[in-house]
Amino acid sequence: MVCALKFWVDINCDLGESYGNFKVGSDAEIMPYITSANVACGFHGGDPVTIAQTIALAKKHGVAVGAHPGYPDLMGFGRREMQLTYNEAKTYVIYQVGALQGFAKVFGAPLQHVKPHGAMYNMALKDEALARAITEAVLELDHNLIVFAPPKSVLAKKAADAGLRVAHEFFADRAYNPDGSLVSRRLAGAVIEEPDKVVGRAVKAVKEGVVEAVNGELVELGTVHTICVHGDTPTALKLARALRSGLVKAGIEVEAVSRFI
Amino acid sequence: MVCALKFWVDINCDLGESYGNFKVGSDAEIMPYITSANVACGFHGGDPVTIAQTIALAKKHGVAVGAHPGYPDLMGFGRREMQLTYNEAKTYVIYQVGALQGFAKVFGAPLQHVKPHGAMYNMALKDEALARAITEAVLELDHNLIVFAPPKSVLAKKAADAGLRVAHEFFADRAYNPDGSLVSRRLAGAVIEEPDKVVGRAVKAVKEGVVEAVNGELVELGTVHTICVHGDTPTALKLARALRSGLVKAGIEVEAVSRFI
Amino acid sequence: MVCALKFWVDINCDLGESYGNFKVGSDAEIMPYITSANVACGFHGGDPVTIAQTIALAKKHGVAVGAHPGYPDLMGFGRREMQLTYNEAKTYVIYQVGALQGFAKVFGAPLQHVKPHGAMYNMALKDEALARAITEAVLELDHNLIVFAPPKSVLAKKAADAGLRVAHEFFADRAYNPDGSLVSRRLAGAVIEEPDKVVGRAVKAVKEGVVEAVNGELVELGTVHTICVHGDTPTALKLARALRSGLVKAGIEVEAVSRFI
Amino acid sequence: MVCALKFWVDINCDLGESYGNFKVGSDAEIMPYITSANVACGFHGGDPVTIAQTIALAKKHGVAVGAHPGYPDLMGFGRREMQLTYNEAKTYVIYQVGALQGFAKVFGAPLQHVKPHGAMYNMALKDEALARAITEAVLELDHNLIVFAPPKSVLAKKAADAGLRVAHEFFADRAYNPDGSLVSRRLAGAVIEEPDKVVGRAVKAVKEGVVEAVNGELVELGTVHTICVHGDTPTALKLARALRSGLVKAGIEVEAVSRFI
Repeated sequence: MVCALKFWVDINCDLGESYGNFKVGSDAEIMPYITSANVACGFHGGDPVTIAQTIALAKKHGVAVGAHPGYPDLMGFGRREMQLTYNEAKTYVIYQVGALQGFAKVFGAPLQHVKPHGAMYNMALKDEALARAITEAVLELDHNLIVFAPPKSVLAKKAADAGLRVAHEFFADRAYNPDGSLVSRRLAGAVIEEPDKVVGRAVKAVKEGVVEAVNGELVELGTVHTICVHGDTPTALKLARALRSGLVKAGIEVEAVSRFI
Repeated sequence: MVCALKFWVDINCDLGESYGNFKVGSDAEIMPYITSANVACGFHGGDPVTIAQTIALAKKHGVAVGAHPGYPDLMGFGRREMQLTYNEAKTYVIYQVGALQGFAKVFGAPLQHVKPHGAMYNMALKDEALARAITEAVLELDHNLIVFAPPKSVLAKKAADAGLRVAHEFFADRAYNPDGSLVSRRLAGAVIEEPDKVVGRAVKAVKEGVVEAVNGELVELGTVHTICVHGDTPTALKLARALRSGLVKAGIEVEAVSRFI
Repeated sequence: MVCALKFWVDINCDLGESYGNFKVGSDAEIMPYITSANVACGFHGGDPVTIAQTIALAKKHGVAVGAHPGYPDLMGFGRREMQLTYNEAKTYVIYQVGALQGFAKVFGAPLQHVKPHGAMYNMALKDEALARAITEAVLELDHNLIVFAPPKSVLAKKAADAGLRVAHEFFADRAYNPDGSLVSRRLAGAVIEEPDKVVGRAVKAVKEGVVEAVNGELVELGTVHTICVHGDTPTALKLARALRSGLVKAGIEVEAVSRFI
Repeated sequence: MVCALKFWVDINCDLGESYGNFKVGSDAEIMPYITSANVACGFHGGDPVTIAQTIALAKKHGVAVGAHPGYPDLMGFGRREMQLTYNEAKTYVIYQVGALQGFAKVFGAPLQHVKPHGAMYNMALKDEALARAITEAVLELDHNLIVFAPPKSVLAKKAADAGLRVAHEFFADRAYNPDGSLVSRRLAGAVIEEPDKVVGRAVKAVKEGVVEAVNGELVELGTVHTICVHGDTPTALKLARALRSGLVKAGIEVEAVSRFI
């Protein structure tokens, strides 16, 4: 008897972050290599024309569409911490994800997932009230939506507690601390640029559920469902291409997360 | 044999136009007298917290909820003409109505209608491309949504051509030109303030389908489905109350437009 | 020989916070009772039309004009904490105060002072980098500008260190902690509403440089230069009137702070 | 006796239009070839951090700084027509130019000029009220500021009538109609891309005060003071370089307009 273990993983990327005349990212170039697109919703980036173009492009490439809500801080690209009340955070997510659902309906590309952006994502990894606000907004809009979050984060826990499916996210090009958090970008070595190394870490994370921390310790990740790539540099494009083909070569199926979670 | 003609009409009002700390309107006071609420969608007014509160309030009073999308001009309250492309206009409507649909889902108060706001409304009465952009956005989001528009307007025509239901709107407190357009607010006598006069015009419009223009001619309105009241002055509140009771006294059923259109 | 001690104090109020059609505050009503106006600069409130009207009104009443810069958060009225870099904070202040200087030039009402708004003010009381960013922006724009800050705050210290004049601010209608900070608005008793009590505290603060804390201890304030009143409630208007007449009755000269600092 | 005619011209470019994380233009690359920078003021582009960087860069290169105010339409990059009242337009210009004056003061790089942006510029070429609003704002802020405008435009006329200096602008890479207006970008041949042709037209405009219209007629320009180049394409950079060296080769002094007007 032959027993073959089979592995799946999703590749996600933040897209649709341009704003009117202000263009960011290489959406058209990166789309062929990913399986899930996190589409900006207008608060940190992503005007309505851009949202429509991005969803049309994703659909053309068979890429699953998700909402990528952020803080109402266009000037800071949603990357600055803001102190919101529970109700502000919840309604801001309803508003943004609702808007994306509208476009998803129009383009016949139903929303697969929600991944908070920037400071909203980072704060929700630790802040219970914020994580709960996001989770309840998603749940009340559509309980079939998948929440993207790092394993062991408060956001992952709240979403799972609420009965939502959670896609555990792995950052293949970022160094990890022994506690499973990412090494701050302000520190040397925080970003891993060699494609081989990135692919190696991704394959290990998917197949073995571990990543080596900066001090050499192994960090347990559990099942990794989706790998985040960045779309805003030429390096990132090369990385995405290497990642996709590296995962496939390692016998891993690269599919939108809703197909296997 | 006795034959009784029965009349229905809806009363609509623009609500939820506050923005964070900036409060406008008397939403709580006006809600008991209306049957359809046009809820601002964030572009000209209406932050997400306000949208949520407004829909919750409407639901509590049994008032039907509609989306009230406008131009992206918070500083000008959406009242200034802007030249948008067809695609900009269409995606701006999808975005705003989609966001409202999200809140409608969360609060269990499904959207009944769409009424464009301010300059977007006024321009769509004459501008074919704009009227079509709005209409197609609505149609693609939900073909059951009713479009509010004055009879004979380009917007009403485009919406009907697209197969959408159109609620013909009458402005009981505004003077009419012989061609069916409103007398500009910049001219004396444009706004009618005496409650008796306003009620009289409303009853006549509903029962006979006509209004007397400033020059004394009768303007044919056809069937009037909804009467607009304003919610931002104490006078308006008094007017709304008078209108509601005046219509009822005249034997007209005042109901949300979806119940009889 | 008779020796008469003479006391002066300024009364300041946040004004010009309306935004287009969104009206807040009772600027016209409060103006006669104050001597310094903190004029919003467009980020948390205050569109250009409002700024112009407010400065014209202040000039008419002989009220000194100051800039009231805030965080770029119109939806949160600048009251939510945001994490800005030193450079962001400094340039945001230059931008907003520069814009106010433009209006001050046009109306012939030169800027007297700068008082940060909301969360920017509160954070600058403790945050060295933010206080320094604000201070340096002010210094480089005009070293004659006076900075409003509570005595002993980091902001007061940084401004004084930089060679700027500092007007020590006292909040007559707010309860104080023994360390000189304000009791949080979320706690009962944080706001003092009885006009007599407010006036009594103000007179004592100006003449004796102390205020009684919630636990009965006396807090040393040093010289108090300006008393803050709020302009957005009917109570506040009554309070401002009582304060102005109470101070005058107590023999204190109420003048714009630049006349006596 | 030998009589030598001497010619001067300025080269201006729109710069500093990035907004936070949203980068547009090639400011650093284009700066060496120009003599006047039109710096965005925050309404259509240009956040405060960008403004500061742009003015610092201009100063380093000895480039004169001007304000480039636009409509409050970040989503449309200030390129969409908006109907503003006289007072709105005037105060929007005061606000934006005032903010720039603040940065100019801080960086020791006094403002030389004002050039309206996008739709505000285009509408002011024909609209008397708008042209007057802009002109009076500039005049009241600083009567030494130079206004950039095409010869014969309403804006040029209003500025001259008000006693302001006007720099007549020539678009070397745009085709002209016989009446002196630009051929619409929507028509073929509206943009001239061959560097030789562009340089030839520029030299002729500066030395002879004429340009050949699309129908072959000569359009009288009068004295040309400044030539506009665009900074947002690689072609534009090549063009700017060709233009600068071509003008110099033709014996024309390329200097900031305030040095010779």
